Amino acid sequence: MENIKSYIDTHKDRFIAELIELLKLPSVSADPAFSQDVLNTAEAVKEALEKAGCEYVEVCETPGYPIVFGEKIIDKTLPTVLVYGHYDVQPADPIELWNSPPFEPIIKETEIHPEGAIFARGACDDKGQMYMHVKALEYMTQTRNLPCNVKFMIEGEEEVGSESLEWFVQNNREKLSNDVILISDTGMISKEVPSVTTGLRGLSYVEVEVTGPNRDLHSGLYGGAVANPINVLSKMIAGLHDENNHITVPGFYDKVAELSVEERAEMAKAPFSLEEYKDALKLNDVYGEKGYSTNERASIRPTLDVNGIWGGYIGEGAKTVIASTAYAKISMRLVPDQDWKEITELFQAYFESLAPSGVRVKVKPHHGGYPYVTPIDSLGYQAASKAYEETFGKTPIPQRSGGSIPIVSLFEKELKSKTILMGFGLNSDAIHSPNEHYGVWNYLKGIETIPYFYKYFVELSK
Amino acid sequence: MENIKSYIDTHKDRFIAELIELLKLPSVSADPAFSQDVLNTAEAVKEALEKAGCEYVEVCETPGYPIVFGEKIIDKTLPTVLVYGHYDVQPADPIELWNSPPFEPIIKETEIHPEGAIFARGACDDKGQMYMHVKALEYMTQTRNLPCNVKFMIEGEEEVGSESLEWFVQNNREKLSNDVILISDTGMISKEVPSVTTGLRGLSYVEVEVTGPNRDLHSGLYGGAVANPINVLSKMIAGLHDENNHITVPGFYDKVAELSVEERAEMAKAPFSLEEYKDALKLNDVYGEKGYSTNERASIRPTLDVNGIWGGYIGEGAKTVIASTAYAKISMRLVPDQDWKEITELFQAYFESLAPSGVRVKVKPHHGGYPYVTPIDSLGYQAASKAYEETFGKTPIPQRSGGSIPIVSLFEKELKSKTILMGFGLNSDAIHSPNEHYGVWNYLKGIETIPYFYKYFVELSK
Repeated sequence: MENIKSYIDTHKDRFIAELIELLKLPSVSADPAFSQDVLNTAEAVKEALEKAGCEYVEVCETPGYPIVFGEKIIDKTLPTVLVYGHYDVQPADPIELWNSPPFEPIIKETEIHPEGAIFARGACDDKGQMYMHVKALEYMTQTRNLPCNVKFMIEGEEEVGSESLEWFVQNNREKLSNDVILISDTGMISKEVPSVTTGLRGLSYVEVEVTGPNRDLHSGLYGGAVANPINVLSKMIAGLHDENNHITVPGFYDKVAELSVEERAEMAKAPFSLEEYKDALKLNDVYGEKGYSTNERASIRPTLDVNGIWGGYIGEGAKTVIASTAYAKISMRLVPDQDWKEITELFQAYFESLAPSGVRVKVKPHHGGYPYVTPIDSLGYQAASKAYEETFGKTPIPQRSGGSIPIVSLFEKELKSKTILMGFGLNSDAIHSPNEHYGVWNYLKGIETIPYFYKYFVELSK
Repeated sequence: MENIKSYIDTHKDRFIAELIELLKLPSVSADPAFSQDVLNTAEAVKEALEKAGCEYVEVCETPGYPIVFGEKIIDKTLPTVLVYGHYDVQPADPIELWNSPPFEPIIKETEIHPEGAIFARGACDDKGQMYMHVKALEYMTQTRNLPCNVKFMIEGEEEVGSESLEWFVQNNREKLSNDVILISDTGMISKEVPSVTTGLRGLSYVEVEVTGPNRDLHSGLYGGAVANPINVLSKMIAGLHDENNHITVPGFYDKVAELSVEERAEMAKAPFSLEEYKDALKLNDVYGEKGYSTNERASIRPTLDVNGIWGGYIGEGAKTVIASTAYAKISMRLVPDQDWKEITELFQAYFESLAPSGVRVKVKPHHGGYPYVTPIDSLGYQAASKAYEETFGKTPIPQRSGGSIPIVSLFEKELKSKTILMGFGLNSDAIHSPNEHYGVWNYLKGIETIPYFYKYFVELSK
């Protein structure tokens, strides 16, 4: 596999050109105006997989956008790696904040990327990261370095909740059978500090309504005499945290797996500058649960955040109204071993109990997902670690992310295999934001690292 | 003056027809699309005043919409009554909730108004109530019953904050000089229970902003580690009331004039059914400051209400965002002898002090007004009381309203005279709402009662 560097050197201009073609397709799954583009992108991914060496590729119909399945089976007695990725992208809005059109990719140098970065919607999330796997497969098949079987499952609804994926996985367990799942849809600490995401938080997302009077009232004539739903909602939200910023929902922490002193000490070794963190967000101070560091608060601890609130008059100027109803969207990030369905019920019961007489409260659960942790002693993690050592010259840092990828728990449940999250993106890549980009260096480094994962995974599986 | 009933009987169809013509003019001051209609309405009021007997009428230019001034001076040694009203109206929105077009007045019977009510925007607020004074003047001049001088000041910006009025009053003190100001722009308890509004609450209206990070953040990656502006704003709002629903702003109550036990007992005599009140608003309970009745909470006690709140994602579905900034509009209703400018400063200082480090807070004062009380032993109040006794056969109940009419304190300050609020509207008239209406009975009863006010005011002034 020592020829990987020279293979990339020879073909890198084409690797970049192919990705740029893929990025020109505006596969925005959230907006029906782009539905034909989404379908065209699935076809483009199918062709790319075929060219890269898959023997069988299928654009599989689903109740929503199709899932592209591909495979190359070299020996049924060898292990199988299942690569997951997605070909759909976030909407480009607000378009006016882009410095170049989101679907006309260009390469520009940045401070972090002196080798250049590709600017386009989806450059990092996830077309760029997904396409590294396609090009790694090309290398392995072209140079006869593919040491095991490989399957691809590339979906088109990740940015809108992966609604068809559960149905697809449940109906294709045999087709998708594998020994390890490999995903590049996360980030790493920096170009100098590789890391592998070992944990994801779960999620419970709810919407709440507090209703007082049956209609909007004049605040002069009724103010002070009836419960104001906005004031009441504010008080109820305030009651969800105590003075140490612990969440007050009874039973909320009962199943939280506390990390040992050693594990926390290990986590604390990850390079982190509180000053840089605050400076990047223009904050004069951080804020959070007493007794935990910023990194811990954002990864190993559960949270409760209001994601949206509205009620009453929100236009220009003044209107003296008491709103009939006030609303909020609230999400809780969960950690092992919290059960999102149970947490949703605990929240609902407690939130309703906070309401004074004089108002009615509704709690509507939206959706949720389970937290996930990959053990660092698993074969997959060990293989990934060795792959990074090979190409970065450094052992990657296992890192728990605060985000949620609910499909990872779905895969474990339905396919009974562990997921390895080898992400090559950076925090500065502006995914979901204007001017999303992906470093050329990161793209090529991913292509270089992935074949080593296959190599070590097969060796360790023997 | 015993011929007033027969005069009204003879002319009532014309009185109604004239009001209906005035109501056809869509004088919506808030919407520039209606600016010509607003100007046309000023001209219509001018003509009506001339026909009713004013000797001098002028459409006075202001920085905004004109103010119609009219007068009939019969003897400079006699007292002068200044009538204030407004010819502009609220927007008709939401138009789809009207059962008949808002500017095509129709008369329909209702349960409360078996004699019929005029349905149109402005029917009660304030064209109908203002026009009672025009027709009362017609009666007094036509029948030689005008016992004193009269002036009219009818403005066109009441529904948008009376911005030009202060300028006009300050620049026309001599022209507007008077012994008492008479306004019909409020309501009475019921057709069987006449009342005179003796108190109005003041107002301080502010907008607040709480800013955390410099941009919206992903709640998975940052949740729990930075102050969430919506959670923080909720907590700050919750901190503005204590467990007894007293307002916690230090110094807030220092200047509140507490009523005596006797005054509160007098207030408690006003007919009021808590069950009917709750039933009308579909509330299972009332809510408010401990130690005070519902009527007291809504009139003699100051309040603090959030009139609008917004931040984060408020569309359909779910978005896991931590908003950079959360906003609220907050108003405080004030009572004698609170100073709205001082209260605004106290609020600002206290609200800022509630902010944790990790957020920045802005408090932007919008506007305000002073509370007002008319002493019931004043000449004007006594004259009004006798007028109602004459036409309703009952002594009116002095009633303090929870609303605010900031111009009343302006008049007292600039013109040094007391204002008498003889309102003939009912709570059910739906002012500012779809299907606004004004009872024909109320309209004619107002025309009948007003001349007696003049009569008794002159008699008591001797």
